[in-house]
Amino acid sequence: MTTTAHLSEDSELARLYRDFTAEHLNPLWTQLDSLMPTAPAPRAIPFVWKWSNLYPLAERAGELVPVGRGGERRAIALANPGLGGAPFVTPTLWAAIQYLGPKETAAEHRHSQNAFRFVVEGEGVWTVVNGDPVAMRRGDLLLTPGWHFHGHHNESDQPMAWLDGLDIPFVHYTDAGFFEFGAEGVTDESTPDLSRSERLWAHPGLRPLVGLDDKSNSPIAAYRWEHTDAALAQQLALEDEGYAATTEPGHAAVRYTNPTTGGDVMPTIRAEFHRLRAGARTRPRRDVGSAVYQVFAGSGGFRLGDDVQKVGKGDLIVVPSWVQWSIVADTDLDLFVFSDAPIVERLQFGRTLVSRNA
Amino acid sequence: MTTTAHLSEDSELARLYRDFTAEHLNPLWTQLDSLMPTAPAPRAIPFVWKWSNLYPLAERAGELVPVGRGGERRAIALANPGLGGAPFVTPTLWAAIQYLGPKETAAEHRHSQNAFRFVVEGEGVWTVVNGDPVAMRRGDLLLTPGWHFHGHHNESDQPMAWLDGLDIPFVHYTDAGFFEFGAEGVTDESTPDLSRSERLWAHPGLRPLVGLDDKSNSPIAAYRWEHTDAALAQQLALEDEGYAATTEPGHAAVRYTNPTTGGDVMPTIRAEFHRLRAGARTRPRRDVGSAVYQVFAGSGGFRLGDDVQKVGKGDLIVVPSWVQWSIVADTDLDLFVFSDAPIVERLQFGRTLVSRNA
Amino acid sequence: MTTTAHLSEDSELARLYRDFTAEHLNPLWTQLDSLMPTAPAPRAIPFVWKWSNLYPLAERAGELVPVGRGGERRAIALANPGLGGAPFVTPTLWAAIQYLGPKETAAEHRHSQNAFRFVVEGEGVWTVVNGDPVAMRRGDLLLTPGWHFHGHHNESDQPMAWLDGLDIPFVHYTDAGFFEFGAEGVTDESTPDLSRSERLWAHPGLRPLVGLDDKSNSPIAAYRWEHTDAALAQQLALEDEGYAATTEPGHAAVRYTNPTTGGDVMPTIRAEFHRLRAGARTRPRRDVGSAVYQVFAGSGGFRLGDDVQKVGKGDLIVVPSWVQWSIVADTDLDLFVFSDAPIVERLQFGRTLVSRNA
Amino acid sequence: MTTTAHLSEDSELARLYRDFTAEHLNPLWTQLDSLMPTAPAPRAIPFVWKWSNLYPLAERAGELVPVGRGGERRAIALANPGLGGAPFVTPTLWAAIQYLGPKETAAEHRHSQNAFRFVVEGEGVWTVVNGDPVAMRRGDLLLTPGWHFHGHHNESDQPMAWLDGLDIPFVHYTDAGFFEFGAEGVTDESTPDLSRSERLWAHPGLRPLVGLDDKSNSPIAAYRWEHTDAALAQQLALEDEGYAATTEPGHAAVRYTNPTTGGDVMPTIRAEFHRLRAGARTRPRRDVGSAVYQVFAGSGGFRLGDDVQKVGKGDLIVVPSWVQWSIVADTDLDLFVFSDAPIVERLQFGRTLVSRNA
Repeated sequence: MTTTAHLSEDSELARLYRDFTAEHLNPLWTQLDSLMPTAPAPRAIPFVWKWSNLYPLAERAGELVPVGRGGERRAIALANPGLGGAPFVTPTLWAAIQYLGPKETAAEHRHSQNAFRFVVEGEGVWTVVNGDPVAMRRGDLLLTPGWHFHGHHNESDQPMAWLDGLDIPFVHYTDAGFFEFGAEGVTDESTPDLSRSERLWAHPGLRPLVGLDDKSNSPIAAYRWEHTDAALAQQLALEDEGYAATTEPGHAAVRYTNPTTGGDVMPTIRAEFHRLRAGARTRPRRDVGSAVYQVFAGSGGFRLGDDVQKVGKGDLIVVPSWVQWSIVADTDLDLFVFSDAPIVERLQFGRTLVSRNA
Repeated sequence: MTTTAHLSEDSELARLYRDFTAEHLNPLWTQLDSLMPTAPAPRAIPFVWKWSNLYPLAERAGELVPVGRGGERRAIALANPGLGGAPFVTPTLWAAIQYLGPKETAAEHRHSQNAFRFVVEGEGVWTVVNGDPVAMRRGDLLLTPGWHFHGHHNESDQPMAWLDGLDIPFVHYTDAGFFEFGAEGVTDESTPDLSRSERLWAHPGLRPLVGLDDKSNSPIAAYRWEHTDAALAQQLALEDEGYAATTEPGHAAVRYTNPTTGGDVMPTIRAEFHRLRAGARTRPRRDVGSAVYQVFAGSGGFRLGDDVQKVGKGDLIVVPSWVQWSIVADTDLDLFVFSDAPIVERLQFGRTLVSRNA
Repeated sequence: MTTTAHLSEDSELARLYRDFTAEHLNPLWTQLDSLMPTAPAPRAIPFVWKWSNLYPLAERAGELVPVGRGGERRAIALANPGLGGAPFVTPTLWAAIQYLGPKETAAEHRHSQNAFRFVVEGEGVWTVVNGDPVAMRRGDLLLTPGWHFHGHHNESDQPMAWLDGLDIPFVHYTDAGFFEFGAEGVTDESTPDLSRSERLWAHPGLRPLVGLDDKSNSPIAAYRWEHTDAALAQQLALEDEGYAATTEPGHAAVRYTNPTTGGDVMPTIRAEFHRLRAGARTRPRRDVGSAVYQVFAGSGGFRLGDDVQKVGKGDLIVVPSWVQWSIVADTDLDLFVFSDAPIVERLQFGRTLVSRNA
Repeated sequence: MTTTAHLSEDSELARLYRDFTAEHLNPLWTQLDSLMPTAPAPRAIPFVWKWSNLYPLAERAGELVPVGRGGERRAIALANPGLGGAPFVTPTLWAAIQYLGPKETAAEHRHSQNAFRFVVEGEGVWTVVNGDPVAMRRGDLLLTPGWHFHGHHNESDQPMAWLDGLDIPFVHYTDAGFFEFGAEGVTDESTPDLSRSERLWAHPGLRPLVGLDDKSNSPIAAYRWEHTDAALAQQLALEDEGYAATTEPGHAAVRYTNPTTGGDVMPTIRAEFHRLRAGARTRPRRDVGSAVYQVFAGSGGFRLGDDVQKVGKGDLIVVPSWVQWSIVADTDLDLFVFSDAPIVERLQFGRTLVSRNA
């Protein structure tokens, strides 16, 4: 409508617009399309980071940058190329490679932001969550829900690197974050195989009577690879036996859940693990909300919009909101994924469009 | 107030009461005390059934009474002596010993009533729940939620007896029950170690993506002893290490839960397992609602009101509403218990009174 | 199966049955049909109490029976003819006519049982609920949720009678009830038009900031006739204008709700008001759970199973579980109804079967 | 930690940082303070827009800018000075003055964004929501939940301006928005006093039986001033009578709610109305999340951090996250407020710090 304005009006209009600006006002009609597009038009773009590039950079950071109070963590964030250099993999999510050298310690702190770690390779680090030492091993998902103290220490002679996932961008955006320093070092230096949280909580279908109160976060600090792997293997075996157990043919998947509610592990972050048989492909789909995949094992291709990218172990793939995506497994393909689906769903913005053709 | 009535009034009153009766009316004021006592005054009484009496009677039934269509199950119900001979262990709950001889089969049926089985000894029977064969072994809790088809077959050369728990009295009382015959025999005669429901669902903190819908009953058909035992052992070990993990000193306990909600396994029945160290004693308490214990291992004493009874393996103990109870463990003592707590709590009638002195 | 027993077995069987009885055991197979019928077979029967009979009996009780501490209330309960003379209109529900003479007072008490009053005619009584005086007028629904102190006082020169509804049978059955005497007289003798609860809570869609905590009962003490009447009139007017607003043609209906949840007013009792246009008829249906109707205005017929009964103002009609029922309105017909639907639904036993033919 | 780097390291470090950038990576340690401050440090600032400035600018827009398809609405957004000129009053919320001239129509459309209108003065416009014409009058709150079609038409000879509130920034940020054009004009040009939604739903504590399904948005399209005003007046009257009804002395407040849940009217937006007596002051407090106030009547002062601003009718005040704020009422003071509290609370980020001193 503004394009049809006559010239003489235009000068009054120009004055009006200047007066808007002076009064900290901004008209809707000149920018409706960008503010309210007919479908999500994310600035974040689909992108793939290769593990073969990430790990050497993390190693170099390990040599050059000490871990210490103030900077807190040697974490290198994936910066979505569409987001102007900010350390945000999507508008809501943070994904980083954290690197801890032999015998290094990352001191304790806590923050409102919800965090997890996923281990694509290595072991020897314990993360200490509210005083509970949690071993980190290949394939494990480790939780650090908001406002839990946590620090890490590497007890081995080898460096270790892992994926950190947080809701830093979301908390930053909503101005909801608090941060507090904790102990230098970690408060418990013991190195048990299982955390106390697992010993209390990681028994299928069982809840300790000391833990009957509602919890907004999962009380399980570590979701171990052996359980994830077994659950996926069983789904594929059941499929072979003719029973409905997989989400699509050749596609097994589990969601990590809070056993006190059956819901997501943390209020803002969903985490799942997917396994595709060699040759399987997922139906193309779009979802409101953004997700980040990490290849745990195997190789395959991600179609993101019109583009296909080959991926292998450790590679990280970001799928922005409403981008059409699908996966083809060249070999058996294991994928960890996390997303902001709880934000989208709890606020009733969820939509999914699944293509009829695989 | 009626006791102060004069005689001349009384004859009019007597006529009034007769007219009430003729019109199917009944005055509150003559029976308030029994209808609305100051605290629950259950007709059901505390009672103990000895396994040493129960099992031989079940064996004799096995010899004399065939299992067949019509009677359906060779189940012998505990009839609370306070309830006038009805086969109800409490007003809401049914508890029975079911006995299946070598190679016998109990044909399939389904009903609105929620059911479980708990195995205090033996093995060799599979219960087939909606077509899924579920092995029954010592220490296992097996679920048959309402309206699931189920039958049992004994594949061994030994008879097997177990505890059946249901909400038959409650469903009968509320006129909520439906019943339907199913297949003669069982629909799947295979004898796997693990049911398909466990393969899909019994992984700690993991939910299959094919099972994201809400479920009013637990989708896990079998809660295996190895998990229950491990969870209890861990609680006691954590206590030894100085961490809060037990409900009272020397008293470990888990609740069986529906992993899709974190709540009770079935809408009307709560099930838990408790382990007391030798010498431990529970705080005397009263609860609204009724419960039935079965000793799984060890020996000890139940104080029920003013009475103490010694109990050992297999013995069944009923605790009616608001009766004060406490337990002393003579040896290490393992106890299965089920109750109508979900009924009480969902309808907001829950109250508990815990004594300060252990 | 028992019928085919041979004689020689029979004597052993007879001995077994005697031994069962001696040990407080009771076999399932001899009574399965009555315990677990193929569909609900309630002992309670459909029945109608005529107001023209009830009210004179209440008046006579008013003359003969004082209201006083101990008997507490001059309440005359409807005793379902199928329930053996117990003062229960259904297995779960209590319905009574309470009668209070001019200037009489019913002293305060409280109990776990949830209660309401519905006024089919008259006014002049205030019920004082936790110290809040609540005027009772024709068409009003007044709540006394569990464990709220309450007493009544009649400020007028006329007697007043009303319908009391409670969950006394259910609470008695589950042994969940507590009772406590309160003040002699009532704690607040003022006679405001509106209770404080209404002034705070009865504004459509608005919640006071002092009342943001969860409440298991509605905080509204009185649902006034003017609101109920207006809501029903609007539904029929909208139907006339061509919009979907009625539950069936000519059948308007509202449910009384807890504004803090949108759910039922109390944990065990549902209350609704229905209005049928003259000539309207409801579809025959069966529901699990029991209900009691009171005709508020107009006349019509209730079909209950195969029987049709004519009803008019004040008459009370009980519909046991799974009995097929339908209503025909001879004139415009206003009906209050309460039921145990929250018990049935919260415990997942709900089923409804609606006939295709009106 | 990076500040202590030696020069020779620095050049390697500089190279590392360049390589990070080339690979779309971004280290945490250089920016922790801004990303994860010890308490929320919003870019949005506290600010006041004066109605005396806003309205004339809206009038000028009314003369110069047509309302038409494409720009859709003559809405002038408040652009928080801290947010770089974007039309966002806070990071999550949109607030705008919308202006519709005599006999003008704003055509129908729908979008994922949740919207409301609040009327500080004037009348004569109907907003048509999913075909239901809703009159807009002084003091009314009108809802347009996500994906409801809506258009407006002014039936009077006077222009009308009102406050629009939406979650446009949040939906833009999360890439969750869809938009669709609807009818030219409005689909129902009738001008009833009450919308059909009110006739069906706006009866206190009553729910139509046709509306028993769960609803994520309030089904009430209009919250009328007469109800809001009465609720607030009653709270103050109850306070005068000595009863707890106000949130603080002299401070009455109601929350607009979804009657089907008792929760907020829409998934992302909370709306409330507050009334302060002349001379009353609120306790200084900080909350996570952002809010926008509009003065409806009276005058007073807002303390925002260390700054106090005088406000009067129509003025709009923004309170960013964790800014300390308090209000003093110079006269009786009526305030409408909306906020993103549902976002904060559903995602478990809520925190409030209330000062002890008023």
